[in-house]
Amino acid sequence: MPEQNRQMLLKRRPNGLPVPEDFELVENPLPEPGDGEVLLRGIYLSLDPYMRGRISGVRSYARPTELGEVIEGRVVGQVVRSRDPAWREGDCAAGGYGWQLYSAVPAAGLQRLDPAEAPISTALGVLGMPGMTAYIGLSDIGQPKAGETVVVSAASGAVGAVAGQIAKLKGARVVGIAGGADKCRYVKEELGFDAAIDHRGADLGGALDRACPGGIDVYFENVGGAVQQAVFPRLNDFGRMVMCGMIAEYNDGAPRPGPNLGAVVRKRLKIQGFIVSDQRHRQAEFRAFAAPLVRSGQIKYREDIVDGLERAAEAFIGLLQGRNFGKLLIRLSPDPSR
Amino acid sequence: MPEQNRQMLLKRRPNGLPVPEDFELVENPLPEPGDGEVLLRGIYLSLDPYMRGRISGVRSYARPTELGEVIEGRVVGQVVRSRDPAWREGDCAAGGYGWQLYSAVPAAGLQRLDPAEAPISTALGVLGMPGMTAYIGLSDIGQPKAGETVVVSAASGAVGAVAGQIAKLKGARVVGIAGGADKCRYVKEELGFDAAIDHRGADLGGALDRACPGGIDVYFENVGGAVQQAVFPRLNDFGRMVMCGMIAEYNDGAPRPGPNLGAVVRKRLKIQGFIVSDQRHRQAEFRAFAAPLVRSGQIKYREDIVDGLERAAEAFIGLLQGRNFGKLLIRLSPDPSR
Repeated sequence: MPEQNRQMLLKRRPNGLPVPEDFELVENPLPEPGDGEVLLRGIYLSLDPYMRGRISGVRSYARPTELGEVIEGRVVGQVVRSRDPAWREGDCAAGGYGWQLYSAVPAAGLQRLDPAEAPISTALGVLGMPGMTAYIGLSDIGQPKAGETVVVSAASGAVGAVAGQIAKLKGARVVGIAGGADKCRYVKEELGFDAAIDHRGADLGGALDRACPGGIDVYFENVGGAVQQAVFPRLNDFGRMVMCGMIAEYNDGAPRPGPNLGAVVRKRLKIQGFIVSDQRHRQAEFRAFAAPLVRSGQIKYREDIVDGLERAAEAFIGLLQGRNFGKLLIRLSPDPSR
Repeated sequence: MPEQNRQMLLKRRPNGLPVPEDFELVENPLPEPGDGEVLLRGIYLSLDPYMRGRISGVRSYARPTELGEVIEGRVVGQVVRSRDPAWREGDCAAGGYGWQLYSAVPAAGLQRLDPAEAPISTALGVLGMPGMTAYIGLSDIGQPKAGETVVVSAASGAVGAVAGQIAKLKGARVVGIAGGADKCRYVKEELGFDAAIDHRGADLGGALDRACPGGIDVYFENVGGAVQQAVFPRLNDFGRMVMCGMIAEYNDGAPRPGPNLGAVVRKRLKIQGFIVSDQRHRQAEFRAFAAPLVRSGQIKYREDIVDGLERAAEAFIGLLQGRNFGKLLIRLSPDPSR
């Protein structure tokens, strides 16, 4: 009896914070790979904040997921059947084929993974889209110089942790903002940031003043909300705001007011947004930079692995509330390489 | 009997829109130039929006004018006595020596002007700081490409008029926003913008939609306020906002809320401020670009000349309300070159 496929569909558009009833787990027969395609069994599914935008139905930089469709997402998996001469059973690959256990996909769109080079899960985190997001944002926009002060929000998260560590490697003073004592301890003691601030604390502004006595030169923005409000007025002349995401506002029904832009003139600030998928062609550049640093331990990472596609909705809702600790992954099936 | 000097002092810090009583006109004996200095008689005084910041006493990118001091400002004048071998009586020069008729200033800080090259008043406008502001903002931040849509606010003003004309020369579609039918006609018919919008009209958003059917790629921001609110949501992906000034908000007691920055991520916007005085070293580059275009008539300009230092306060208050039409100058004494 052949195994069934399992898929998580978008059942309903979330109103505010998603609830489990917005998602639906279904079983279907295994798909058949066509010519030039392979059948992949997923091992890890990456859950990322951008997915909140995809299921909202709002026109944005990417097509939204329609009701009844498999939710978009990047997966690391293993080839179980190949109809492409370049791929064999057992090969590991990463591809964007959504919240499902199996997928029949064109081989041309797959990224080949070598388990001997790095754990395959890292292709979804520190060596994947989140790590590359940190790299692109700092390289193209933040451009921290030695001695400058860099503040990173969501500092223990998949993007923030890498952004802060790269800034440290560039010689900057790095201050992380995270939710809770455990994450703050991790950011400071494990990742080596110069300071960590719990955004749940009473006086975020005062804490920033103490941690950044010379003001803030670069802000790597992942969260928006109250953290953005506290950081913005503390930017120095010629400060850069790397606009990566604003997760604290993703469930808002209407946009909150932002900062008055008069300071952008007076302080010659630069506030610039980016989307890593615009820079896909620079993946080799990113891996050449990051893979040696990950292997040598100069860039550390932490994964928060949740078992089973059936728990993906719950885990994703937790991600939007900051309940994960490290790169959030769903383990779809056992990882044969560890 | 020697002529007296006349100076306009800051008497009181304005509360909101300045009033004439915030300024005081005084007479004093002529200053004596020391070694290496010249005595200049002012011919034109430039009045510019940035002066509102200087008299507010708020710490900013420049030292504020203190109470009882001569208000800062750039002047074109003529040497009446020289104690520097490089300067002779009758030579024309531009320098930043404030709202006053005479000044004894170090010759080293003066910019020499040749009345045969261009009317000396242009050193305060189209070929001076305002023109260079337009040039720097577009060259460094806006970078309009042929076929893109550029919106310029305060489009008939000293900066906006040049910004729009440079953008036209780069092949962009240029839409000006100005206050009133006369300025709109000037912007479209004299300056050659593709369209002009009266911001006093009822439906600014609708007017922008009609004038910019393909959205807005570059916004050259001079005004803030309701115009910024209307333009911001109409920026295209990869749009640039050249943050030059926000004159409509300069008299605010407290900053207004700004735009939510979520769109900066989604649309990969760049919002960047600049101050032309950071780029003083590029004055030759600017003049090499602009002077031939002004001589050939490809960049047009308009001056709004008010006679007499005693009318400077009134004229400056009008500037903050958009009552001037073209580059606002105070004629301090007759211009011998025209």
